[in-house]
Amino acid sequence: MSGNTFGNLFAVTNFGESHGPAIGCVIDGCPPGMALTEADIQGDLDRRRPGTSRHVTQRNEPDAVQILSGVYEGKTTGTPIALLIQNTDQRSKDYGQIAQQFRPGHADFTYWKKYGIRDPRGGGRSSARLTAPMVAAGAVAKKWLYEKYGTVFRGCMAQIGEIAIPFEDWSHVPHNPFFAPVADVANLEAYMDALRKAGDSCGARIRVTASNVPVGLGEPLFDKMDAEIAYAMMGINAVKGVEIGAGFASVTQRGTTHGDSITPDGFETNNAGGVLGGITSGQDLEVSIAIKPTSSIISPRQSIDVNNQPVEVVTKGRHDPCVGIRATPIAEAMLALVVMEHALRQRAQNGEVSAAVDAAPLQASFL
Amino acid sequence: MSGNTFGNLFAVTNFGESHGPAIGCVIDGCPPGMALTEADIQGDLDRRRPGTSRHVTQRNEPDAVQILSGVYEGKTTGTPIALLIQNTDQRSKDYGQIAQQFRPGHADFTYWKKYGIRDPRGGGRSSARLTAPMVAAGAVAKKWLYEKYGTVFRGCMAQIGEIAIPFEDWSHVPHNPFFAPVADVANLEAYMDALRKAGDSCGARIRVTASNVPVGLGEPLFDKMDAEIAYAMMGINAVKGVEIGAGFASVTQRGTTHGDSITPDGFETNNAGGVLGGITSGQDLEVSIAIKPTSSIISPRQSIDVNNQPVEVVTKGRHDPCVGIRATPIAEAMLALVVMEHALRQRAQNGEVSAAVDAAPLQASFL
Amino acid sequence: MSGNTFGNLFAVTNFGESHGPAIGCVIDGCPPGMALTEADIQGDLDRRRPGTSRHVTQRNEPDAVQILSGVYEGKTTGTPIALLIQNTDQRSKDYGQIAQQFRPGHADFTYWKKYGIRDPRGGGRSSARLTAPMVAAGAVAKKWLYEKYGTVFRGCMAQIGEIAIPFEDWSHVPHNPFFAPVADVANLEAYMDALRKAGDSCGARIRVTASNVPVGLGEPLFDKMDAEIAYAMMGINAVKGVEIGAGFASVTQRGTTHGDSITPDGFETNNAGGVLGGITSGQDLEVSIAIKPTSSIISPRQSIDVNNQPVEVVTKGRHDPCVGIRATPIAEAMLALVVMEHALRQRAQNGEVSAAVDAAPLQASFL
Amino acid sequence: MSGNTFGNLFAVTNFGESHGPAIGCVIDGCPPGMALTEADIQGDLDRRRPGTSRHVTQRNEPDAVQILSGVYEGKTTGTPIALLIQNTDQRSKDYGQIAQQFRPGHADFTYWKKYGIRDPRGGGRSSARLTAPMVAAGAVAKKWLYEKYGTVFRGCMAQIGEIAIPFEDWSHVPHNPFFAPVADVANLEAYMDALRKAGDSCGARIRVTASNVPVGLGEPLFDKMDAEIAYAMMGINAVKGVEIGAGFASVTQRGTTHGDSITPDGFETNNAGGVLGGITSGQDLEVSIAIKPTSSIISPRQSIDVNNQPVEVVTKGRHDPCVGIRATPIAEAMLALVVMEHALRQRAQNGEVSAAVDAAPLQASFL
Repeated sequence: MSGNTFGNLFAVTNFGESHGPAIGCVIDGCPPGMALTEADIQGDLDRRRPGTSRHVTQRNEPDAVQILSGVYEGKTTGTPIALLIQNTDQRSKDYGQIAQQFRPGHADFTYWKKYGIRDPRGGGRSSARLTAPMVAAGAVAKKWLYEKYGTVFRGCMAQIGEIAIPFEDWSHVPHNPFFAPVADVANLEAYMDALRKAGDSCGARIRVTASNVPVGLGEPLFDKMDAEIAYAMMGINAVKGVEIGAGFASVTQRGTTHGDSITPDGFETNNAGGVLGGITSGQDLEVSIAIKPTSSIISPRQSIDVNNQPVEVVTKGRHDPCVGIRATPIAEAMLALVVMEHALRQRAQNGEVSAAVDAAPLQASFL
Repeated sequence: MSGNTFGNLFAVTNFGESHGPAIGCVIDGCPPGMALTEADIQGDLDRRRPGTSRHVTQRNEPDAVQILSGVYEGKTTGTPIALLIQNTDQRSKDYGQIAQQFRPGHADFTYWKKYGIRDPRGGGRSSARLTAPMVAAGAVAKKWLYEKYGTVFRGCMAQIGEIAIPFEDWSHVPHNPFFAPVADVANLEAYMDALRKAGDSCGARIRVTASNVPVGLGEPLFDKMDAEIAYAMMGINAVKGVEIGAGFASVTQRGTTHGDSITPDGFETNNAGGVLGGITSGQDLEVSIAIKPTSSIISPRQSIDVNNQPVEVVTKGRHDPCVGIRATPIAEAMLALVVMEHALRQRAQNGEVSAAVDAAPLQASFL
Repeated sequence: MSGNTFGNLFAVTNFGESHGPAIGCVIDGCPPGMALTEADIQGDLDRRRPGTSRHVTQRNEPDAVQILSGVYEGKTTGTPIALLIQNTDQRSKDYGQIAQQFRPGHADFTYWKKYGIRDPRGGGRSSARLTAPMVAAGAVAKKWLYEKYGTVFRGCMAQIGEIAIPFEDWSHVPHNPFFAPVADVANLEAYMDALRKAGDSCGARIRVTASNVPVGLGEPLFDKMDAEIAYAMMGINAVKGVEIGAGFASVTQRGTTHGDSITPDGFETNNAGGVLGGITSGQDLEVSIAIKPTSSIISPRQSIDVNNQPVEVVTKGRHDPCVGIRATPIAEAMLALVVMEHALRQRAQNGEVSAAVDAAPLQASFL
Repeated sequence: MSGNTFGNLFAVTNFGESHGPAIGCVIDGCPPGMALTEADIQGDLDRRRPGTSRHVTQRNEPDAVQILSGVYEGKTTGTPIALLIQNTDQRSKDYGQIAQQFRPGHADFTYWKKYGIRDPRGGGRSSARLTAPMVAAGAVAKKWLYEKYGTVFRGCMAQIGEIAIPFEDWSHVPHNPFFAPVADVANLEAYMDALRKAGDSCGARIRVTASNVPVGLGEPLFDKMDAEIAYAMMGINAVKGVEIGAGFASVTQRGTTHGDSITPDGFETNNAGGVLGGITSGQDLEVSIAIKPTSSIISPRQSIDVNNQPVEVVTKGRHDPCVGIRATPIAEAMLALVVMEHALRQRAQNGEVSAAVDAAPLQASFL
């Protein structure tokens, strides 16, 4: 109820602060019998890790994950899987002034109003660092879904600031620091270098998809698959908009074009983004999210302090000039957690997700 | 878990089918002692009701609400409030063929795959008719929030198809069939008439806001206020996109402009849309949603039947050519349910929502 | 969260007051495709119904159930099943005095303190009449569990006041007004007649069991099957104690006798009551509950009114001299709801409850 | 849903295995601003700790708790409090044979059936060692409730095997290894010594109470305070029965005596155990629980192995001859968690728990 647990049947409880001794999560509900080691999780954590290029924050965190429970002789036991990540690079410094001021665009003001107390060190609980345990939990979900249904999650950068990035191929994504699906990222490099030099930051748009999703996941009224995805995505730090399928483009579409025609070989288009009436159709889930520009910038900003006095805030320290860059693995993880939750729900109501068998040939003809 | 209950502390459980004997909901968690009669609820139901202009479906439903429990001598008792709405205009007809076909853009295909059985009469459970009980529940939440904190919810049409609608004034909204905030809707009338004549449908964009929202609502990690709003909005039938504050426009913004500056008199802009770090700041909540064109159109569409054979589907009957038109009171209601839930949560953790006192002067200088 | 919904995957939301227009419930999560009519539910309601003998309250309620949703052409659709029971015998009378006094042993005092308002008509929400919708929901769970796993729920009276009732045979239970498992109930008739004449009431002990329960239901730490049963039973009006298996007798047992030995043909005893480590073993669930004497008696009692002034309370009207008599079908229903919930949970985590297959031969050798 | 989280508004998620690297919990929902250090928690952990007398297991665990998050500069911040306890005395040994056998009275059989895999080291997840994190979480709840409402939780041993222990005074409880409220425990010492020599174990009965409980806690239908207590208590390892107030003695009571009379100075008796209609009355909560004899005994027992072959099981190692002895602080902690949860719920619905003010004078005249 206090918003630190994601999901019900595959429930991930997140804890920790940016500069506390450790962060982590407890996964409750992972089915038993799946092979699982730290190495299965570390890969996605490394994709999200800071310090991997000059375009992201230089905080040096190995983000090494440790499994504390729920695995016996290399297999999940069906009991809670506790994952721990030590904070190793929480530099000590004087937070006296920062603790008294509210940085524009940050949670400082609202935490203060909500709790009457806040941990100012590196943003405390509001830091995007707390997405690391979600990436770890998402890796567990991804593994199970892939082994069970062949489901695959992929994400890429679709736009950085004004630069729209065309989709060339998924294969390019791991080979540049932007998760861009293009071979040549020289223009992005130049753009980011200029931005950093200007002491400013920019927004981004991320696309994230899932393929081989079982048919029939999601609940019709409130826990619609698209509603759950919107909840998961809007919960990622700095996200300001979410689209499923055609998204806002559907405003100017006509009924004669939007509704995806169906043939015996499958759907002809995917304006729906893989969800009809809140339930997965077996088509790819197609999601797009808008990420605001980083609020922590070295350019001075006008604000107030805890005594309602005007102050000029300058954010020093190590920050991402475009928080969207590291958001791709996070968005993939959150999408995986949503699908995982609903795969288990569907099993509860229908026994096995037998629809997965139906989905396979449908997918085959589509992809 | 099966997705028919919205909220936890102010939990609304929805039931019914479009052409069953009745629809309704049970509200669990309404604080005791609030004056409540059917008349308090009927107003918003009438705003959503079909048959009020030639631009919406001609189904003739009074949507008269009956309070079955939870109110004694005109006051809420703190126990569940059951609301019942009889279905009076469910025309009997032959559903034989419809029951065997999957209408494009509809939930027919996915319900069939998920449940192996579906009620084909008027869309059954997937009908937008099931938003009526939510509008009723939202009216209860609106009343309590207004009396307690002065919170006000408003929505309007921002775009119909290609026609963007400028914001003139809230006062115009009740005086035209489109919920448009403009004095002159002749262009919208003409647009809709042409569309209906063409046997087609169009999308829409709705803006919905809340003013005098207490500061400090929302939970920092997952149940962020914006995440909860996204979940609520994307759960409305036909919604394909959700924005908070600057939304997708934030992709091309810079950090030097996006982060709203704060002065001793309040925030200077509202790119955040009233939410910082997932927690309300006391500024107006600003939400925008994209609604797809109605899938039920009389123009023939290509699809398959339950035996995977190709069929041509023509949807007859009474349908909205732009489902977005009646969506405004629904979006308001869902936003009210989110704020209500989190006002109660905040009381759980902090005793009273004392932040409301702080919010008042802040609001005064902003609005 | 306000305690009117039982269960999560098979969630039953209860509403209504004793003397309001209607009572009922919404079942969310019933698997689709099960044949279901009102007749399947009415049988258990009739077993609980008032007015069936001189030993229970003479309120005349047919308790006829109506299915409002969730069933299409005689089969469940997987969507919410709303059940409605009209209140037909809520006699109008002057509640002026009753509304100002707190009856000893009743919820009057605590409702007043909790809500600051209460519906005094027939106990309002605190009336045992609200168990009727649970019996209805339990009948749905019983049917599904029986058809799926052969699970059978049975209850009987084990003690009325000082009279312990030996177990002769389940076949006697439907043939006397006490749900007693004995052929001759003359002593119980005499006992109850004398009690009624004395204007007093007495307690009771009920035994309730489930056979052919799938192995592996229940969660190890908190949602242990026995913990869930205790929660369900203690939630029945007037229950003051719950035992599983050997119960309080285990205090004086030794480890050498309590732990049930296992042989290749099955367990040799059932001190555990069918639960080991919180998880069902496939043995019969064995539960015993203590029910306090009816608080509504015509003998005068000392109490206070809302102004803290002393008053003498005499409860007139129609009341059960031993509320335990009608509790047997209620306890069966609640046990069925617990098993149903956990059968679905186990399917979520394990796919099908394959353990049911293992359980069958185990049961065969035990019963 | 998988049963490792207790509570909703004060939610405690438990993780770990008896012989894994660590155990712990995450508390989500603790109100902000309370002073909290490890020392506030360690006291109760030490009361539960093994190895403190010859009458309990000789496992040597310091059970030192570490706060990983949720506390800043010695005060709770309203964000999750992660508590970690390292396992230091998990002796390595050969579990080959134990892993293949099902110990009678243990969860071995049911875990195997449920999960198809189990951690056999020290009982794995089913070990009573997992109550340690609950004692830690309970200490946090106790502190908040005491500071806020003056609520005090106390427990004592009421019976060991056949020896009923009279209640002399709470002051004796900390001064003997049995938590017995008597000055002289020589008879208990002798009893336990004889039992240990015989290689056997015995049951126990524990009484646990809460004083200065705010009026109005608990929900009327399902989440009745007594139902929640029953759930919490029956969830403690080895508990087989729960009573509230008069408990099973109410079976032979009459209505003329059971219902507690009320005077302007308060209730005259406490047969109700502090709960009327599921809601706290301000009287002391009175709970009694039955604990079965330890299943781990050195006397040989008959069982089967995973291949359904008969085996003779002898449990060596370090075990409590009466698990009830260390159960007192556990029962107190669980009771505190229930009261905490419902204090927060009542604040959600009613703002502050204003009833606490009413309760104070009521208590004063009663105790």
